[in-house]
Amino acid sequence: MDKTLNIPKTKKPRVIIIGGGFGGVSIAKELVTRKDFQIVLIDRQNYHTFQPLLYQVSTSSLEPESIAYPLRKIVKRGKNTFFRMAEVLEVDTSKQEIKTNIGSINYDYLVIATGARTNFFGNKAIEQNAMRMKSVPQALKLRSLMLENLEQAVITPNLEVRKELLNFVIVGGGPTGVELAGGIAELRENVLPKDYPDMDFSEMEIHLIEGADRILPPMSAEASKNAKKFLEKLGVKIHFNTIVTNYENHIVSTNTNLELKAATFVWSAGVTGAPINGIGGNALIEKANRYKVNEFNQVLGFENVFAIGDIALMQTEKYERGLPMVAQPAIQQGSHLGKNLRALHNKKSLKAFKYFDKGSMATIGRNKAVVDLGKLRFGGFFAWFIWMFIHLVFLVGFRNKVVTLFNWVYNYINFDKASRLIITPFKAKEDTDVV
Amino acid sequence: MDKTLNIPKTKKPRVIIIGGGFGGVSIAKELVTRKDFQIVLIDRQNYHTFQPLLYQVSTSSLEPESIAYPLRKIVKRGKNTFFRMAEVLEVDTSKQEIKTNIGSINYDYLVIATGARTNFFGNKAIEQNAMRMKSVPQALKLRSLMLENLEQAVITPNLEVRKELLNFVIVGGGPTGVELAGGIAELRENVLPKDYPDMDFSEMEIHLIEGADRILPPMSAEASKNAKKFLEKLGVKIHFNTIVTNYENHIVSTNTNLELKAATFVWSAGVTGAPINGIGGNALIEKANRYKVNEFNQVLGFENVFAIGDIALMQTEKYERGLPMVAQPAIQQGSHLGKNLRALHNKKSLKAFKYFDKGSMATIGRNKAVVDLGKLRFGGFFAWFIWMFIHLVFLVGFRNKVVTLFNWVYNYINFDKASRLIITPFKAKEDTDVV
Repeated sequence: MDKTLNIPKTKKPRVIIIGGGFGGVSIAKELVTRKDFQIVLIDRQNYHTFQPLLYQVSTSSLEPESIAYPLRKIVKRGKNTFFRMAEVLEVDTSKQEIKTNIGSINYDYLVIATGARTNFFGNKAIEQNAMRMKSVPQALKLRSLMLENLEQAVITPNLEVRKELLNFVIVGGGPTGVELAGGIAELRENVLPKDYPDMDFSEMEIHLIEGADRILPPMSAEASKNAKKFLEKLGVKIHFNTIVTNYENHIVSTNTNLELKAATFVWSAGVTGAPINGIGGNALIEKANRYKVNEFNQVLGFENVFAIGDIALMQTEKYERGLPMVAQPAIQQGSHLGKNLRALHNKKSLKAFKYFDKGSMATIGRNKAVVDLGKLRFGGFFAWFIWMFIHLVFLVGFRNKVVTLFNWVYNYINFDKASRLIITPFKAKEDTDVV
Repeated sequence: MDKTLNIPKTKKPRVIIIGGGFGGVSIAKELVTRKDFQIVLIDRQNYHTFQPLLYQVSTSSLEPESIAYPLRKIVKRGKNTFFRMAEVLEVDTSKQEIKTNIGSINYDYLVIATGARTNFFGNKAIEQNAMRMKSVPQALKLRSLMLENLEQAVITPNLEVRKELLNFVIVGGGPTGVELAGGIAELRENVLPKDYPDMDFSEMEIHLIEGADRILPPMSAEASKNAKKFLEKLGVKIHFNTIVTNYENHIVSTNTNLELKAATFVWSAGVTGAPINGIGGNALIEKANRYKVNEFNQVLGFENVFAIGDIALMQTEKYERGLPMVAQPAIQQGSHLGKNLRALHNKKSLKAFKYFDKGSMATIGRNKAVVDLGKLRFGGFFAWFIWMFIHLVFLVGFRNKVVTLFNWVYNYINFDKASRLIITPFKAKEDTDVV
């Protein structure tokens, strides 16, 4: 065997955390500086991604290095903590063992924080042809595609082909879709006309397609209404009650016979849990692909297997279908479970998790946002300010906060989006020297 | 024809600039705000790369967005100026026409600023297996490879395999090789031991291989001596008078029977001009692959075809084999040629180019650099300060200067290199959703 996870054996019970998203990082932070456990954090990437700002990478506002954070920088704060970049293949709960692409390892406590992936609802054509917005490489790919299409459009004399290159179709009126549509509209309004003085941007259309009768469905009716108003003011065409049925050869088809031609098609219409092999049965709610957990985040049927964040389906009186799949439940469950594991270790009783809804928000282009904070609902400039403040506070890492803030200020003052680079590594052609 | 360069015809003479490096950007800046010409800037990338800091992208110090600059942001300052992202295939000087992958276009004046590419001296195995340091994608690829090898090393129990993963071999003792070796040594010294507390970094070796008997051969003997001292203090093993003959299956072979095993092998041992098809014959000095130009940067045999920067071979009394292939001659020739073109247009006489040697410098890790400024030669902390100042001044774009300065201050204070992310877009596996 030439590879192993290479974790030393100690007398301390071992906690394995699978996934370095909001949930995994939150529990890791809670536990790494304590001395109760040996901690092993596993992720396929070597960095944490601040997903709420991915759309700003796609729209050239921020460099990916500002919204990603090396997981080793979190883990290294503790002494008996380890990070391993690996893919988990299977869990064997009878042996308390996980199998990864770099070997197997036993656990005393397992924390599943694998999050969610894009849900294509079984549509293979869309899965194959759509852009996604769940990871840094995907966000960068979208950035490059957008900019490449603009470079193509400027040299395309045929109006129909040009419009196809300039059209953007975004499916899904959740925060990602709304914020992305707003960001692209802002590019069209303030940045692109200066970059492409020889192009007529009235030819460029931005379509947002939503299956329900309003955007931002989990938010208040006021927020939905305001967001719609802000987007339409920026020239985004919103299609309600519309289901996209296909996307092939740049043609978007819907159940309403709307037919759009667009070279850029982003799918942000839903997510589904990302469970792991070996834990299924009753524990897995198949429709949602999420693990049913109790108020201690224990996965149904297990004492020492926990799930937090998007992958965990915790039912409460208010949330009969489980807590929302956003950052806050993951962050709160992570730190709560950290405390509970320490209680368990010290033979104290577990405390039930209580979700504190801090509210939700979405930004739309420059100067506008909508915010729901309990009964407080507001939209506009002040909301936009709150949005920025909250995102800076939650962004991981001091350096990231400063660089992001500077980028925002710079972009705001200069009506600019500074990172509009087409960087396409690993394509054979680009890999040769650049003339 | 579905694509054309799509440049309107005007009465103004058309200047085509091929290449957005130091030379191309310099002449573009000189001309875009004037009204004498129509300007068309062509590059395969949509951004300018500040090559002297590429090694800092590879060593996780800087994000690529800080050292790259959108070419459209330079071109848009003028009214009758155009940028096209295209690959030039051929020049037909008899028709005054260039052919690109997106169509053909005529010129009145042609400025070739295609720069240089890595020179492998015909060694195919090395060309295929080595990392390069001439473009942003290449620098990012090296960053990812280094970090991936570290993640592999930490899970590799076999000492020999682990050492192979940890070994770095850099070929070429010019500024790129020296600064990269220093940067990696600094990572080993200050950053990696914190990231990988369970790894023994005495197992990691950094080798710098140079064919001559000193590093930084174009600089003063003092600079070479100081650089050697600084590198050796950081634990870099320097091999002088050594020619690398092969690199295959992670094995580096040399003419001195030195044999090293290393998973990371960087080739920065030389550059060669990147001429374009259609202009050759007497004009091309084949050994150097550079165009012979007179003191007005006119390519031998042409009145209206000019070459600037690395691709131009301008002989002077002091530089019998042509000006050095670094940024300064390109920048100075670019702005000088801009002025000369305007003189030509206004029927005034051309002025001969005079190279003003502003000196040269290289940095070695934290706190150390060597600087040659005319007769002034110094090394150490003050030189390092000068190095940073000069690089900030020449970095294109206010935003880039600020973000770079902040990164440097942050990294310096925290003994950190904040951008150590393995971002590998477009690999099939990574393109799926990340768990």
